[in-house]
Amino acid sequence: MTTDTTFQDQLTAVIYSVTPTEPAAEDRAWERLDSLTKPPRSLGRLEQIAARIARIQGTDHPSVDTKSILLMAGDHGVVAEGVSPFPQDVTWQMVANFSAGGAAINQIARSVGAEVEVYDVGVARDLADFPGIRHANVAHGTDNMAQGPAMTRELCAQAVLVGVEAAREAAERGVQLIGTGEMGIGNTTAAAALTAAFTGVSAETVVGAGTGLDAAGVAHKAEVVALALKANADLLTDALGTLAAVGGLEIAALAGVIIGAAEEGVAVVSDGFISGAAMLAAIKLCPLAAEYVFPSHLSVEPGHRVLLDALDLEPVFDLDMRLGEGTGAALAMGVIDAACEMMSGMATFAEAGVSGSEAE
Amino acid sequence: MTTDTTFQDQLTAVIYSVTPTEPAAEDRAWERLDSLTKPPRSLGRLEQIAARIARIQGTDHPSVDTKSILLMAGDHGVVAEGVSPFPQDVTWQMVANFSAGGAAINQIARSVGAEVEVYDVGVARDLADFPGIRHANVAHGTDNMAQGPAMTRELCAQAVLVGVEAAREAAERGVQLIGTGEMGIGNTTAAAALTAAFTGVSAETVVGAGTGLDAAGVAHKAEVVALALKANADLLTDALGTLAAVGGLEIAALAGVIIGAAEEGVAVVSDGFISGAAMLAAIKLCPLAAEYVFPSHLSVEPGHRVLLDALDLEPVFDLDMRLGEGTGAALAMGVIDAACEMMSGMATFAEAGVSGSEAE
Repeated sequence: MTTDTTFQDQLTAVIYSVTPTEPAAEDRAWERLDSLTKPPRSLGRLEQIAARIARIQGTDHPSVDTKSILLMAGDHGVVAEGVSPFPQDVTWQMVANFSAGGAAINQIARSVGAEVEVYDVGVARDLADFPGIRHANVAHGTDNMAQGPAMTRELCAQAVLVGVEAAREAAERGVQLIGTGEMGIGNTTAAAALTAAFTGVSAETVVGAGTGLDAAGVAHKAEVVALALKANADLLTDALGTLAAVGGLEIAALAGVIIGAAEEGVAVVSDGFISGAAMLAAIKLCPLAAEYVFPSHLSVEPGHRVLLDALDLEPVFDLDMRLGEGTGAALAMGVIDAACEMMSGMATFAEAGVSGSEAE
Repeated sequence: MTTDTTFQDQLTAVIYSVTPTEPAAEDRAWERLDSLTKPPRSLGRLEQIAARIARIQGTDHPSVDTKSILLMAGDHGVVAEGVSPFPQDVTWQMVANFSAGGAAINQIARSVGAEVEVYDVGVARDLADFPGIRHANVAHGTDNMAQGPAMTRELCAQAVLVGVEAAREAAERGVQLIGTGEMGIGNTTAAAALTAAFTGVSAETVVGAGTGLDAAGVAHKAEVVALALKANADLLTDALGTLAAVGGLEIAALAGVIIGAAEEGVAVVSDGFISGAAMLAAIKLCPLAAEYVFPSHLSVEPGHRVLLDALDLEPVFDLDMRLGEGTGAALAMGVIDAACEMMSGMATFAEAGVSGSEAE
């Protein structure tokens, strides 16, 4: 990556290089789906998922055999306001846990045949000598958004570009489906602030218990989010300004993952609330990215429904999950894989010698 | 299997041999789940699924590595009433398609690492020389339930025992999770009649479009179901009588799969509406079987919600599917596998050196 231009200029160039998917590819996909040995459309959303992957890949035999969770980690200055019951050290401790294979995402990703790539984008502790992770730290945590912008626009663009590069690298090694995942103590606060800023709803509407706040803790968190929106009111003028002011380094990187995947023509499945906030930011930065992204589960965090509604997206399932890490994205990868296998592997009525409907 | 007693006596003996699961095993499961490196209960229903499998298996490291869809096929005399847009031959043609690996269930099962075992329990055509399937035909289709009982009690018990034996054999070869699947043109009519008979709701409430009826076809199908309930009113006095009068050979066999799995201490995941009717019948025949069974998806067929509500079961997901074959069960197997991998593979806070919540 050259540095003779600003990171913001580089990001603008990436955004302009994203191209739309082809409606004709989806038409061909539905032609094949309707010829397969099943009552037409009887696999419901599974068929819709397969058709969308087919459109993204430009084929009527889609495949997501190679899957990767890109897990971005970063810390948040706003933890100084007491918004999480867990200490900030848990961010790097969980990075160590991911690296050792002991976290939930490691197991769930393995069960669906996905790899997990962990990126240090903005962890507070110096992890330069840390094994088993990708070193891409651009700052040791954000500033406290309750007192001013979490990041400068330039730092934010730099973090987005980390994600773009991660997606490009995944595409180069043959990854056909990318999942978003994150770790960062305090990041439901940032996700709530982003959701409120982008959709215009109140702080109270989008704030939840996160990793386990009680009612008083949730009320305090809503006050902190309201404070952050007020302190940064002049900066929320465009997508990058908003992401910089009330976002997070790992959230910015995930927005970059989505834009980078769109640039490469690779489908992305978004995890829960924090990944959802990154998806919202990505689509605000680069509207065409919406054509490449799939929601996964509906998080317990109330802000997730708000942002999915704003994007007119329906999650694949609702399992009362609220962990993050990419766990919901990984589960949805299993469903997307099944959808593609179905579409690509099934026999047609003609091939199988099965009689059609007498109504036809 | 000896035949010096009646099939009904043999079935009674199987039902009495089912034992309850141990609540203490679930308590130990929750102890482990709450010690793992995640906010307590943050994986929602995934944790509940893992805890139930742990209870069934009597371990806090559950596993469903070995998975099998037991797909029962049978024909229905009630197709004479014009209740399906597809001809009856599609039943055996689809059995051929399953055997050749060209159906939706073959692809989806492969994508979650499950085998598919296809049983001819009651196909109308003689499939004795047919390759790649299990030969267990007890009758070449049922009688027309609109004019009298679909089966005698003794034939019905015989079909149930086919499923019991299939589950036992699966358990013997090490299967840790069984999924139910079916094929039988006309079987949404039987499933609707069973659901109405067991829950007391009207025929109109439980009848849907099946493989693709139009509104007039659905109305006619509801009349046929109402007729069947009337013609067999004197026979709907107990679970076996109801299953015999308005059920199907493949539905009876699936009820047997569930009872046999319970007898063997193996978890079963139920597919959509027709498998759901079999689950309802199984639990009416053998209430303890309820401890071993999991719902999967919510079918588009309206009767499925009725029977799930009657059993107080919440499906894992709702993807607008209505194909059957075990496709929803196979998808749910992926989620159950992920739940078990999560529970068995994750590190505890102590093992990983991760700080706990400051609220504790």
